[in-house]
Amino acid sequence: MPISPRPGSPAPLNPSARVLLGPGPSEVSPRVLSAMGMPLLGHLDPEFVALMDETQDLLRYAFRTENRLTMAVSGTGSAGMEAVVVNLIEPGDKMLVCVNGVFGGRMVDVALRAGAEVTAIERPYGEVFDPQEVRDAIRKVGPKVVGIVHAETSTGAWQPVEEIARSAHEAGAMIAIDTVTSLGGVPVEIDGWAIDAVYSGTQKCLSCPPGLAPVSFSPRAVESIHARKSKIQSWYLDMTMISRYWGSDRFYHHTAPISMNYALREALALVVEEGLEARWQRHMTNHLALKAGLGAMGISYITTEGHQLPQLNCVRIPEGIDDLTVRKRLLKDWGIEIGGGLGSLKGQAWRIGLMGHGSRRVNVTLFLAALETCLRELSAAIAPGAALAAAAQAYAANDATVQA
Amino acid sequence: MPISPRPGSPAPLNPSARVLLGPGPSEVSPRVLSAMGMPLLGHLDPEFVALMDETQDLLRYAFRTENRLTMAVSGTGSAGMEAVVVNLIEPGDKMLVCVNGVFGGRMVDVALRAGAEVTAIERPYGEVFDPQEVRDAIRKVGPKVVGIVHAETSTGAWQPVEEIARSAHEAGAMIAIDTVTSLGGVPVEIDGWAIDAVYSGTQKCLSCPPGLAPVSFSPRAVESIHARKSKIQSWYLDMTMISRYWGSDRFYHHTAPISMNYALREALALVVEEGLEARWQRHMTNHLALKAGLGAMGISYITTEGHQLPQLNCVRIPEGIDDLTVRKRLLKDWGIEIGGGLGSLKGQAWRIGLMGHGSRRVNVTLFLAALETCLRELSAAIAPGAALAAAAQAYAANDATVQA
Repeated sequence: MPISPRPGSPAPLNPSARVLLGPGPSEVSPRVLSAMGMPLLGHLDPEFVALMDETQDLLRYAFRTENRLTMAVSGTGSAGMEAVVVNLIEPGDKMLVCVNGVFGGRMVDVALRAGAEVTAIERPYGEVFDPQEVRDAIRKVGPKVVGIVHAETSTGAWQPVEEIARSAHEAGAMIAIDTVTSLGGVPVEIDGWAIDAVYSGTQKCLSCPPGLAPVSFSPRAVESIHARKSKIQSWYLDMTMISRYWGSDRFYHHTAPISMNYALREALALVVEEGLEARWQRHMTNHLALKAGLGAMGISYITTEGHQLPQLNCVRIPEGIDDLTVRKRLLKDWGIEIGGGLGSLKGQAWRIGLMGHGSRRVNVTLFLAALETCLRELSAAIAPGAALAAAAQAYAANDATVQA
Repeated sequence: MPISPRPGSPAPLNPSARVLLGPGPSEVSPRVLSAMGMPLLGHLDPEFVALMDETQDLLRYAFRTENRLTMAVSGTGSAGMEAVVVNLIEPGDKMLVCVNGVFGGRMVDVALRAGAEVTAIERPYGEVFDPQEVRDAIRKVGPKVVGIVHAETSTGAWQPVEEIARSAHEAGAMIAIDTVTSLGGVPVEIDGWAIDAVYSGTQKCLSCPPGLAPVSFSPRAVESIHARKSKIQSWYLDMTMISRYWGSDRFYHHTAPISMNYALREALALVVEEGLEARWQRHMTNHLALKAGLGAMGISYITTEGHQLPQLNCVRIPEGIDDLTVRKRLLKDWGIEIGGGLGSLKGQAWRIGLMGHGSRRVNVTLFLAALETCLRELSAAIAPGAALAAAAQAYAANDATVQA
């Protein structure tokens, strides 16, 4: 039999240094990177089992929940979305999905593939839903599940969900929320808001490499999963089976991604050490400085005022400036990555992430300085130093607020 | 709003040293662990994109295929199984699955959830299928897809698949094989055997942490996916979408697990540096020494002679010896992990993995020495030193063979 050609010996891996200020993956702290490189335990090793228990407790803290069924699915955030949908939805079930960006749209697609009878309500990219319009839709549709994105990664929109959760419950529906970009960056109150199902990702404000999807299900959601008439269509994401591995019987399901679980555990340990409230404040402080700096350069937000996520700044590309020219320059000369627009915002928006370990004054300063350099070379209308001065002023004002 | 209690600050992660000789995860080489801990690139960074291209080439070498659609799915081996099944199967399609262990059984479950009309043929645990009986079943059933496990992790059975692939094609069917435990340990010839779809895992003979599932689809399989009438039920595993991200247009699908892809790239680079043939030979040499050593202690294989995987040794627990007593002792006193029996073999079998970086003389020697110590304490019938002498003899004989 002919042997396939043996490729040349690849050089050892040596990735360039990057400052990750896009929509994720975000910067990962050295302690989490160290955890990634630690020797492996087996997935049924008593020490690893203890680490899973610990991770569940840490996740409950991060999600602010006492839900027993709280764990990490072995896939990225989108696998978390699919896990929530395919476990809650049976073919023919009604689901109402609120779409104001790419990830709401993805939820519609996932729900349709799960056999849901989907009603989508829409808002333009950058806007949020008014609780009243969602309540009206819930009353009209009578869904089993309402799906909504808490932090829309494609637009930076920060959607209040507490009132919508109440409306869902009044109508006998469950509510599922996407916190991929919110968890660890802004308040997420799973029990306080009475959320039935939630998924997130590791690579945003938790500042862990991508590869796991934290999820949590309320007792009511668990009950509904156990009351299903049909099998969950995904074996890999079947929470009734996965929970037996994470639960006390440790029944083998699939081989857990050991190293990713190490990293999530370390990343959550850092969240605990900082404290959620301090972490939210840090994200807000750096956001306000970035926003002041951008404003001084005449750059405005696409997202509605008052609903701008501090960790994901979705801004309009100034007129006459080419998206890719600037992003390539930032990457080439400073190693800075920011994101472009997704969906209908392609070519019109930049998405600047200040997430987790990346949400630091050093990054805000570097980014504003680099962007000013780029823009001044392309358009003379920017006053030199204005962005950095505005940011410094914002830091001073917010430090005062915090101390007061 | 009441704040969930903040857990105590967890101590930094510090996993105990282990010698991973179970059914996976296997030992990971230091170079791969280093790659796991490297700083992240973004998932659309040109450098990361180049790394993906390189990984595809390396995977083609490992699978011995020229299939364009060759890549890593962002989940563990079982996600690879699900990816193959849900992409090839539409509701109502006929699938023939050969079941001689836990993973064949899992394939039945996955196929049923995908809406397949499944016919399962069975062989007792530890045996392999005769190509003629599979051919008869294929003729009788007339399936769209035949699914079979090349290396059954639960029993150590090494199933010849080339003739079965021919039978499938004669009947107009496609063949999908599970190489989770075989890839990188024994010959896998995707093009040579004319396999239509294959999946594997990273944590066995590739010696990379668990978290990705290499897959490959033949042009015929790709055509069949594009000719589907119904949408693929899993959004996360939809190969038509994933291949647009891995393909030349780099269309965003989901955030790739960056660090896991680093590790897979490094692990495959090590495969190339060693060479597949040398790697297979190494696995065989260490297996023969282990087998000789076990034989000297009166321990026999559950798997049929002639079909024993070198990398997964499934042996009968000696009479009067308690499974857990020995496994706990091995873990406690030497940090050695071996696997217990799965499914119908629970309590009756040990599964000793010599996979990838773990397939080394140092591990064979340590394991035989430790097991002899345990067993002699529990039963006096074992001659001291016999296992090590037999292993040494096997090494000498096989070295001679290799040199001759």
